Amino acid sequence: MSETFHAMWRSLRPLGRSAASGGYRRYAWTEADAECRLWFRMQAEARRLDVETDRNGNQWAWLGDPAAGDAVVTGSHLDSVPDGGAFDGPLGVVSAFAALDELRARGASFRRPLAIVNFGDEEGARFGLACVGSRLASGQLTKEKAYALRDADGTTLPQAMEAAGHDPDAIGADPERLARIGAFVELHVEQGRALDLTGDAVGIASAIWPHGRWRYDFAGEANHAGTTRLADRRDPMLTYAETVLAARREAELAGAVATFGKIAVEPNGVNAIPSLVRGWLDARAADQDSLDAVTAGVEAAARAYADRHGIDLAVVQESYTPVVDFSHTLRDELSRVLGEKTPVLGTGAGHDAGILSAAVPTAMLFVRNPTGVSHSPAEQAAEDDCVAGVRALADVLEDLACR
Amino acid sequence: MSETFHAMWRSLRPLGRSAASGGYRRYAWTEADAECRLWFRMQAEARRLDVETDRNGNQWAWLGDPAAGDAVVTGSHLDSVPDGGAFDGPLGVVSAFAALDELRARGASFRRPLAIVNFGDEEGARFGLACVGSRLASGQLTKEKAYALRDADGTTLPQAMEAAGHDPDAIGADPERLARIGAFVELHVEQGRALDLTGDAVGIASAIWPHGRWRYDFAGEANHAGTTRLADRRDPMLTYAETVLAARREAELAGAVATFGKIAVEPNGVNAIPSLVRGWLDARAADQDSLDAVTAGVEAAARAYADRHGIDLAVVQESYTPVVDFSHTLRDELSRVLGEKTPVLGTGAGHDAGILSAAVPTAMLFVRNPTGVSHSPAEQAAEDDCVAGVRALADVLEDLACR
Repeated sequence: MSETFHAMWRSLRPLGRSAASGGYRRYAWTEADAECRLWFRMQAEARRLDVETDRNGNQWAWLGDPAAGDAVVTGSHLDSVPDGGAFDGPLGVVSAFAALDELRARGASFRRPLAIVNFGDEEGARFGLACVGSRLASGQLTKEKAYALRDADGTTLPQAMEAAGHDPDAIGADPERLARIGAFVELHVEQGRALDLTGDAVGIASAIWPHGRWRYDFAGEANHAGTTRLADRRDPMLTYAETVLAARREAELAGAVATFGKIAVEPNGVNAIPSLVRGWLDARAADQDSLDAVTAGVEAAARAYADRHGIDLAVVQESYTPVVDFSHTLRDELSRVLGEKTPVLGTGAGHDAGILSAAVPTAMLFVRNPTGVSHSPAEQAAEDDCVAGVRALADVLEDLACR
Repeated sequence: MSETFHAMWRSLRPLGRSAASGGYRRYAWTEADAECRLWFRMQAEARRLDVETDRNGNQWAWLGDPAAGDAVVTGSHLDSVPDGGAFDGPLGVVSAFAALDELRARGASFRRPLAIVNFGDEEGARFGLACVGSRLASGQLTKEKAYALRDADGTTLPQAMEAAGHDPDAIGADPERLARIGAFVELHVEQGRALDLTGDAVGIASAIWPHGRWRYDFAGEANHAGTTRLADRRDPMLTYAETVLAARREAELAGAVATFGKIAVEPNGVNAIPSLVRGWLDARAADQDSLDAVTAGVEAAARAYADRHGIDLAVVQESYTPVVDFSHTLRDELSRVLGEKTPVLGTGAGHDAGILSAAVPTAMLFVRNPTGVSHSPAEQAAEDDCVAGVRALADVLEDLACR
């Protein structure tokens, strides 16, 4: 691919990168986020696109008149999970700019407006809710609920927005903007090994598994770890441990996935029995019934353990996304353009494309991930596969916007 | 008890107290610690005692000539665990000043020098090692090892000392100072329910259980919680959970206690399988063999689980204190003074008295704790029992220093 393509990666690579872990810490409305936003603006301006930031903090780079309607939009996000990899999000944005370069090199002329988008706060690493930018725009997250979001330091989302120079008063549903979009195509690195197993560089998404996050608060009694008899303890760490193992068992039974990856302990002292262990369950399954079976099973097991150890348990559903079936018309069109042999696959990961699909015809392209590793500095994508992804995206955009 | 006694508690109560939890956060070399040190100095000066801070940051308030030798020393510490209670530490310091007031009210004249001590950094809440002040003084912690201690923000102990105005270059073994001490008596709130069960306000310590801290580093592979098949995971949270439950089982078998109360997870994201789960095991038992059985049992179980899940496990002993048998001569003298029916009891908690007992004849008095709760804002001691503790300490000091 062109020198421009490599230059994009070179300039993006150092932004928000932790020297300690080698992973990315690009959290919403932080300094690193601002650097990524500046990078997006510079890429857009270098291509003579019109850049705007919408009321919810999503960035748009327009070729053609947005008001004309029936626009073809592509893009993804630039933020990251804690110590995330280089590709999850950025591959979709870089490929969008590269696909435009490719189309211009092909001499394509655009019949419909084209936009490249960088959605804000897709990962939810800072405020605990994923896809905040697209949820706000589509009305799936109200201003009131968004105002209640807080980060680990107690900073609210509107405070963080304001500190970053974005007016939090303006946030909320943006139906006029979404009505301009005729089709949204998000390219993303695969977060599993399906394409590696079939031997394909690129695939098309069929659906996003239903998924959600549940917070488990196990409250016991803080006490001295050296002097409190086992019989006198109400130690919530034991109940947490039993619940972690129950989640694995229930997921195995249902052919689903369930994970406790985040924990907060009070007082978190070596010689103190905890007063509170807070664990977050992430659970996903191919269908609603399987997911319900997992979450009900984990909660029932946790409650039984909690009762036995004198632990108070509160379970709060922090987010939930039902199954997303992408537009069949658009998916069939992508298959026609890319070849009928292109694999069509489901995914357990949430995406802005999944949020938007309720309002807009939406499709996704996946690029092979040789190890399946994701949300980790070890996340990989081969250069040849990235190039194949750009070509595929260019073919799809040419088909949708230039014919 | 006197108005002075209540005034001491009133002035100490707000220092380093968290409005959120109601617990204390008096960590070594912080602002709260400095306030406690100032409080100590003011109490000492109000009683016309000579105050000095030794090279390791311990505070001493002297009545009589330190150089005369064979001094009787009493006191405890003012720092706290995270969200600790009001009595663990401070009860021993407040009671020391109150006992001196009581002896002066009795018109006692001192035959031996008397000192009241406030040991620095007893709880080890900030740097992860308990009894740093007494360990340094007694040579059980070298300057080199102390310099390697870091808090959660990466600040080293010498940096923290320097920031608080203490010269870190001076720290190290202080045998001359310890050689001045003829007897050390530490009064402490009980951290269990033994006195509550026998119905006594005050007890005498027999021994401190052997105890230690072990850090368990479970290293797996960070990955996406939504897209990584269960079979492809190396999730260290599962191994951690199984180890927490193994620790409880092993402690039950050995009649010991074992606790995982502190954890650190990387990256600690809701939708990320952790790359690293770090858990700290605190284990204590009445004798060496039982403790060895517990720690060997937990480590063997953890290694078996780790092998099964593809987890790399490293176990590091962060601290270890063998059984401490307090001076029998001094203990018998306390029994004679307080009455032969005064309960004599062992404890699972470490104390500066335990550290000093290697160099100095040492004894401890315990004051009843009605619920046994400790290292928690809910820690309690009845006023009548605190008063009984002061009287008992005054009786002991009078016997040792005035006859």
